[in-house]
Amino acid sequence: MNQRTDLAVEAAELKQLSEKDGFLETVTAGTIPVSKVRIVNENAASLTGKPIGNYATVFFDGALSDDELFGHAVERTADLIREFLHGAKSVLAIGLGNAEMTADALGPKVVDRLIISRHLKEQLPDLYRELALGELSALRPGVLGQTGIETAELIRAAVDTVSPDAVVVFDALASRRVKRLCATVQISDTGITPGSGVGNHRARIDKQSLGIPVISIGVPTVVDAATLTADALEKVGKQMNHPSAKALAGELANDEGEALRELLGGYENNLVVTPQDIDALVSRTAKLLSEAVNIAIHNVDREQIDALTGV
Amino acid sequence: MNQRTDLAVEAAELKQLSEKDGFLETVTAGTIPVSKVRIVNENAASLTGKPIGNYATVFFDGALSDDELFGHAVERTADLIREFLHGAKSVLAIGLGNAEMTADALGPKVVDRLIISRHLKEQLPDLYRELALGELSALRPGVLGQTGIETAELIRAAVDTVSPDAVVVFDALASRRVKRLCATVQISDTGITPGSGVGNHRARIDKQSLGIPVISIGVPTVVDAATLTADALEKVGKQMNHPSAKALAGELANDEGEALRELLGGYENNLVVTPQDIDALVSRTAKLLSEAVNIAIHNVDREQIDALTGV
Amino acid sequence: MNQRTDLAVEAAELKQLSEKDGFLETVTAGTIPVSKVRIVNENAASLTGKPIGNYATVFFDGALSDDELFGHAVERTADLIREFLHGAKSVLAIGLGNAEMTADALGPKVVDRLIISRHLKEQLPDLYRELALGELSALRPGVLGQTGIETAELIRAAVDTVSPDAVVVFDALASRRVKRLCATVQISDTGITPGSGVGNHRARIDKQSLGIPVISIGVPTVVDAATLTADALEKVGKQMNHPSAKALAGELANDEGEALRELLGGYENNLVVTPQDIDALVSRTAKLLSEAVNIAIHNVDREQIDALTGV
Amino acid sequence: MNQRTDLAVEAAELKQLSEKDGFLETVTAGTIPVSKVRIVNENAASLTGKPIGNYATVFFDGALSDDELFGHAVERTADLIREFLHGAKSVLAIGLGNAEMTADALGPKVVDRLIISRHLKEQLPDLYRELALGELSALRPGVLGQTGIETAELIRAAVDTVSPDAVVVFDALASRRVKRLCATVQISDTGITPGSGVGNHRARIDKQSLGIPVISIGVPTVVDAATLTADALEKVGKQMNHPSAKALAGELANDEGEALRELLGGYENNLVVTPQDIDALVSRTAKLLSEAVNIAIHNVDREQIDALTGV
Repeated sequence: MNQRTDLAVEAAELKQLSEKDGFLETVTAGTIPVSKVRIVNENAASLTGKPIGNYATVFFDGALSDDELFGHAVERTADLIREFLHGAKSVLAIGLGNAEMTADALGPKVVDRLIISRHLKEQLPDLYRELALGELSALRPGVLGQTGIETAELIRAAVDTVSPDAVVVFDALASRRVKRLCATVQISDTGITPGSGVGNHRARIDKQSLGIPVISIGVPTVVDAATLTADALEKVGKQMNHPSAKALAGELANDEGEALRELLGGYENNLVVTPQDIDALVSRTAKLLSEAVNIAIHNVDREQIDALTGV
Repeated sequence: MNQRTDLAVEAAELKQLSEKDGFLETVTAGTIPVSKVRIVNENAASLTGKPIGNYATVFFDGALSDDELFGHAVERTADLIREFLHGAKSVLAIGLGNAEMTADALGPKVVDRLIISRHLKEQLPDLYRELALGELSALRPGVLGQTGIETAELIRAAVDTVSPDAVVVFDALASRRVKRLCATVQISDTGITPGSGVGNHRARIDKQSLGIPVISIGVPTVVDAATLTADALEKVGKQMNHPSAKALAGELANDEGEALRELLGGYENNLVVTPQDIDALVSRTAKLLSEAVNIAIHNVDREQIDALTGV
Repeated sequence: MNQRTDLAVEAAELKQLSEKDGFLETVTAGTIPVSKVRIVNENAASLTGKPIGNYATVFFDGALSDDELFGHAVERTADLIREFLHGAKSVLAIGLGNAEMTADALGPKVVDRLIISRHLKEQLPDLYRELALGELSALRPGVLGQTGIETAELIRAAVDTVSPDAVVVFDALASRRVKRLCATVQISDTGITPGSGVGNHRARIDKQSLGIPVISIGVPTVVDAATLTADALEKVGKQMNHPSAKALAGELANDEGEALRELLGGYENNLVVTPQDIDALVSRTAKLLSEAVNIAIHNVDREQIDALTGV
Repeated sequence: MNQRTDLAVEAAELKQLSEKDGFLETVTAGTIPVSKVRIVNENAASLTGKPIGNYATVFFDGALSDDELFGHAVERTADLIREFLHGAKSVLAIGLGNAEMTADALGPKVVDRLIISRHLKEQLPDLYRELALGELSALRPGVLGQTGIETAELIRAAVDTVSPDAVVVFDALASRRVKRLCATVQISDTGITPGSGVGNHRARIDKQSLGIPVISIGVPTVVDAATLTADALEKVGKQMNHPSAKALAGELANDEGEALRELLGGYENNLVVTPQDIDALVSRTAKLLSEAVNIAIHNVDREQIDALTGV
């Protein structure tokens, strides 16, 4: 059965990968643990379905409702973004996703809270120097159904116009585990395929296609309903430790999810599982990410950000 | 396992009830089918978990994306609301739910589109007579976490203030079937228990407690994740028609959902399954319901409603 | 000409009142200046159009875009709210105004960010004690056109239900001076007349009618277009210091605004002047007020508020 | 004094232009009157401050609250858009403005309600043929403060990507007369200067710069506060027909608005006058414009639009 996840750490966990498979992981424990993963070769890439490259994952469980943890999560994330940016001076931020769909609105919401500064360099050079801001511009490309234009094409056009040193892309992801929803951020240098989440595989946005580093930053906001159900079948079987359950698990694995697909009716890929308070969780998570980016790029204090963005 | 549904027709289907159990159902076929159900006695009430009374269910599958079907669904729903109102002249509409949570915002969104007229009677008596409007007032009581006040108490206070002939309550429901999400409206004369959907059983709002008819109108916007998973386990078992599967189904039934509960982690009751485009579906459904109510109460044409409400 | 203002300090300034007229004012200078005014007798009340009582005005010019000033403004406002509450333990907050109208949405927006705790006392007594929160409940009554119910009646019904020690009412005001928009907060103990801003004088909400203290907290978000124009005519005349200008000013004063009324066409009272970025200003101001109230009632730190309210 | 207007008809009226000045106007009376204007030469362009070209203005006063008039206004506007498009088959719609600022959100709101079809041609060729839709794509470029990128550059990049036959740009305008707010639509073939409304004159978007027709469609949503006040001073003077008033008018004209500027304090260009219910008016106007465009481009019925756009 297809157990979908956009997180490299989950994909590796699912396949129980280790170093000999081309999968390297270093975990730093703490109140805000961080995992750094390297997909080393095509073997690991093929087994996980994730491109060769670097992935950092921040686990910020509990931070959305605890101001101290929230601050730590912002700092850890900001540090990692700085690492991935390798000193890029001019950054173009892309807020992927549909601002009109709660669980998909993370990207646009992050971009709404960024301190945009590129135009100040020319318009208000004194202020720009005084604030000592980095050079940040932003695009909310919308989704294909809203624009009729491939997102990858719009991004490429914006990159041509802005000529940044690096692109940072924000997107809502799908995870396999409910406990990781709005509780985990993945940062990678492998680029993205816009719209891949909804079954449309389109042109890839990455260093190879754009000629500059593409850092993607994502947080899972949904679990695919099919994934949850498949996992439930598998785990309940295992957990009951009953011969019949094991047999069923085997059957299901061979069934390729036909039974499941029928159950979920016409919706299938578009049925998602979320916490009931997903609206508030997405907003808080967007706040966390935007603070991390503002700090990583502009070297501002957390306290200044609200006043500078007017939010 | 607890398979939760707020729809009387689903609860009866689950228990395979029939007339001898105290469950009467008449179905009218058509492009917009309607089921009328009567829970006759305590036996049927106890088996379904729904109070004795009348329930009408409109199946408007496909109507949200087809303007002709949409019009039919509005009319069928308006007819049924008129039936349930039994000629009540002054109506107080209550939009239950949390306007800040997509899937729970149906009630407030319906009320936002109603033609409110009670104050015009005194303020603009000529206009009021000329338009020949019914007398409609409205309350958005919010939810306990937003107000700190029991919703039932606020409703009772508003009823004392307004003295309407009837109360109509709008709410988002949970169904057992994904295909019924934003595709089914249930109208009943049995009242409601505000907040019952999230596990808090509080004071009941019904004809007995208020002294006037309480018509509740609800549309399922979520399937409980626990319900979906439990159903999946059961159905996959049946469908595979395998001795081991049947045995597992039996085990699970005895397990009282312990295994499942652990799987869904800390979230349990608050994990919901929705279509990915739930934001748009809830808005369109609110439009459908509000048009039906405006027509049932004010005798206006569908075309006039936008101009009268300014939406 | 009718130069409308909801600020007592502006009304007194317009009439050039002093102590002998029954108008007492003490101003505390500083980065966030505060004026404390007492309307002592009927003479001053009649001259200003403001009821006898106490008014405190905080001038927080510049605070919305400077995080340090913002913090000071929150503290000064919190101190004054504490003074006006005279130790009230249980408070009902009312967010007046229409959440769908940018400049009128201040009241609902403040209430959206309050830490509501009244229900926790019974539901989660341990947490309630541990957090040592005050007892806060809230109502967003909407406006007459949305409910068909007099706001004063809804407030009275909520007070009967909740039985608080005091009511705090939040509302958007009109000022006479553009520079005071989203830059001034007025706190008073004289109550309010809901809807008075839009020409409908309805039942008063005050200590006399409710039997408990009613603290009203308001920030000007608009200048009446008629007021601005009248002021312009008067001031330009004076400023040019020309005999003909003075003569014109006299004519205009006698004209009772007929000429002006014709100019503003059908709109008159409903035409407002705002800064172009009023949406952001109202949101930031709501944040400032809600932080002040949360601190005054719950004794929390500013840093904890976002985590506790989930905003 | 600078009396700002984005409407060619108002600019001509202000200067009392006629045919001999190079200004041609034909007015069609009716419930929805239409004015067609041609700025013929540089003389008229310089006097009005509007480029040489064609301007059509639809006066839809009263249509937002009357469903019959609304329908007529949609049809008249659709007819004119068709005329200006000269049979263009593939159209790129641009929603200019800041979606977060009520009075500036018209452009993005119009684009939100368009039937976007360009991608269907390739993705769902059968549906595309069956619906017989025109080819429409869209961009919401945001404003400079949100992106750090010149709007004109983003539009140019999108035009390069999409290669449409024509561009249609939607924008909120400023008028001189309060009665024209959300009551007038101007369609022209002269292009636009993004951000010109807020004092930043940037690269022009027109047929010359893009190589394809640029149709701009705008509705006034604000009157500049400085314009209103200047007009008030002038008109009150005239209306009173008093020698002193006439003298003052003369003085003011020579004063170049110094007095006025001081009066409006730090805000000046950014203080706007709007009806109090501007939020609802902008939404209704966006509905009117989007229906007109959908009809002009896709040949759909008004009734189908909601179902096709899911709004």
